[in-house]
Amino acid sequence: MTNPIKITRRNLLGATAGLMAAAGLNPSLARAQAAAPAAAPAAAPAASTAKPLPSYVSWKHADSMIIHTPTTIETKRSAIGSSIITPSDRLFIRNNLPAPSAADIGDVNAWQINVEGVGKPQAFSIADLKQMGYETMATVLQCSGNGRGLFPGKPSGTRWQTGAAGCVMWAGIPVRELIQSLGGVSAGMVYMTGTGGEKLPEGIDPNAVVVERSVPLSAMQDAMLAWEMNGEPMPLAHGGPLRLIVPGYSGVNNIKYIKRLAFTKEQTQAAIQKTGYRMSPVGQKGDPSQPAVWTMDAKSWVTSPSPDSGPVKAGLVQITGVAMGGLEDVAKVDVSLDGGKTWQAARLVGPDLGKYAWRQFVLATNLKAGQYDVSCRVTTKAGVEQVATSTENAAGYLNSGWISHTVKINLA
Amino acid sequence: MTNPIKITRRNLLGATAGLMAAAGLNPSLARAQAAAPAAAPAAAPAASTAKPLPSYVSWKHADSMIIHTPTTIETKRSAIGSSIITPSDRLFIRNNLPAPSAADIGDVNAWQINVEGVGKPQAFSIADLKQMGYETMATVLQCSGNGRGLFPGKPSGTRWQTGAAGCVMWAGIPVRELIQSLGGVSAGMVYMTGTGGEKLPEGIDPNAVVVERSVPLSAMQDAMLAWEMNGEPMPLAHGGPLRLIVPGYSGVNNIKYIKRLAFTKEQTQAAIQKTGYRMSPVGQKGDPSQPAVWTMDAKSWVTSPSPDSGPVKAGLVQITGVAMGGLEDVAKVDVSLDGGKTWQAARLVGPDLGKYAWRQFVLATNLKAGQYDVSCRVTTKAGVEQVATSTENAAGYLNSGWISHTVKINLA
Repeated sequence: MTNPIKITRRNLLGATAGLMAAAGLNPSLARAQAAAPAAAPAAAPAASTAKPLPSYVSWKHADSMIIHTPTTIETKRSAIGSSIITPSDRLFIRNNLPAPSAADIGDVNAWQINVEGVGKPQAFSIADLKQMGYETMATVLQCSGNGRGLFPGKPSGTRWQTGAAGCVMWAGIPVRELIQSLGGVSAGMVYMTGTGGEKLPEGIDPNAVVVERSVPLSAMQDAMLAWEMNGEPMPLAHGGPLRLIVPGYSGVNNIKYIKRLAFTKEQTQAAIQKTGYRMSPVGQKGDPSQPAVWTMDAKSWVTSPSPDSGPVKAGLVQITGVAMGGLEDVAKVDVSLDGGKTWQAARLVGPDLGKYAWRQFVLATNLKAGQYDVSCRVTTKAGVEQVATSTENAAGYLNSGWISHTVKINLA
Repeated sequence: MTNPIKITRRNLLGATAGLMAAAGLNPSLARAQAAAPAAAPAAAPAASTAKPLPSYVSWKHADSMIIHTPTTIETKRSAIGSSIITPSDRLFIRNNLPAPSAADIGDVNAWQINVEGVGKPQAFSIADLKQMGYETMATVLQCSGNGRGLFPGKPSGTRWQTGAAGCVMWAGIPVRELIQSLGGVSAGMVYMTGTGGEKLPEGIDPNAVVVERSVPLSAMQDAMLAWEMNGEPMPLAHGGPLRLIVPGYSGVNNIKYIKRLAFTKEQTQAAIQKTGYRMSPVGQKGDPSQPAVWTMDAKSWVTSPSPDSGPVKAGLVQITGVAMGGLEDVAKVDVSLDGGKTWQAARLVGPDLGKYAWRQFVLATNLKAGQYDVSCRVTTKAGVEQVATSTENAAGYLNSGWISHTVKINLA
């Protein structure tokens, strides 16, 4: 390309982001470059071999991501990191509606949420909430469809592998504290219902498109209204300025841009709840009689070595991965090198960030050159063992089976 | 400025970073913008009112940083975040020598370290180390001079306030495991000595400039050779591709670009050890008879509200901060609103990442409009209480006194 791009100071601010997106670059480039080999082939491939990052997430680390569509972007299996918390610039993206722009949001601290179905219903700004409470917690954030691409069938939807999941540190106000200050939940309420603040397309029944989800009231106990993710103001791409975090519940239940938190007698009539995100048998449509996609199961997978982590030599090898307990603490992880015939206990690594976070694990083992089918299987403190195979369902939700997550590795 | 800047695809990669630096922008801009008000005055001030970020750290979050010099950059008191781990793009920078470039480093996995003073001395590449072991830990990384600017005198050196510190998650190989595989430390060794791989200026006695530090052998027990920081390959600006992490020891002892790890009978003769980083009485030069700057003390400080955190309304207020125990777990933190006359117990927040990490704390309290002198004081599990005043020393090291860290806040 020989045409120069003209930039004046006046439009530099906007232009820079555009420029970078145009080149398939992203703002963590400088950091990535700093760690790249001198000849730096690592920085280039995104532009030539893969889709570029959409501009609203131009700050993601392109080389770590698989871009399915502009709203479905996952982390490569080997790029999840070894330090428990998933860096924000490597965390997956899955938005049911386009993320609002900064202009749509306006002043972050003035963002309002209405709380209903409580003793004293009230609206709060984020500035209000920040003065009312503060807690920090780590949770696994996982798309309901993570692992869909590993089901043997072809369920509809993005063919996520392992990377529509991350472990994230949140800061905000515990929902139970906020509700307590409002006189508690009104009598007879059964669900906690959150409504997203996305701009809805006009001329369509709002219930057909609104991101509004109901979860059982019990989920309130550990839920949070969070304005911070991994130590920074919640990025808009991840639901900022305010997101409902429902620990142990799959991604869609963690409402982005939350503008209404209501305690209700019934589940919402929004399509995303009524017929969407249901555990529908293969070949059937979703309907309210089927189980809703709510809590996540015990699940683990190997992250390294993996086909995308580069060559590994025979000899001593560190087999690492992540393991979550769903609603419970992880007790142990076993690793198999022969596709599940025999198992060895792995070691849990690093600090325990609580039952809703994941643990990283390692099995250090001496291996000869050859091919191995590497599997892992988590057991929770209550003794629940990760399933071998999840029941395939119409939309390929909640695939936690260790067999389908087995990875073939080659040692040279 | 009306002169356009011409950019071709060929030089876009380099030019983008330069452009952004020229405008005082940084690569987390897109993320910051996403969370900024529509009118977005937040993105601009760096260019007009503060020094721009140097290009090697152009990816830092400019609005969160105070740039003293190109090699001394701290986090604003209120910008440390509420989620325990300090985001990489907000972590302070303090380099004794300029950071190497990616070209200086070459292939990251081929970076070599020599291990000496052990049964079987040997050189290892990072690729070797990654196959030999894996652990994750969180530590407080704090510049030896953090708080220097809060001493009543004028000790020489950068006038750091509270922000030359962060809590960071590392991944790498435990030093003790590596050394064990080499037959252990040779008899009679007393120190662990690390040598940095910075390019030394020519024509000068290397001992005058090399970053080489010795710490007591006991520090080996929990030390790590780390190749990952906060889930990403260690940035060069922070000592990548390989850094020695010595938990509980101040920043300078955590050797960047480490190329040699030696167990020695004597402390290194490098000036940075022999006469530098000594607890010298005010007015005296450093000499080896004075205590070396090694372990950190119990210390805490309030991060919000603070003069740089924006206006806070009277009423219920969340007073938050960070607290470290040095070599020990934090047991409790007390907060005073009257400059230390009376104290109230704060609540520790979020998961405990281990004794070398810091805890975040909060005191929720109802306050009338007015001015308050807010102090905090940490107590370790062994009952050691943060000092009221640290002894001032020639270079202003290790200021942990709660009195000097008191912050005045105004509630409207």
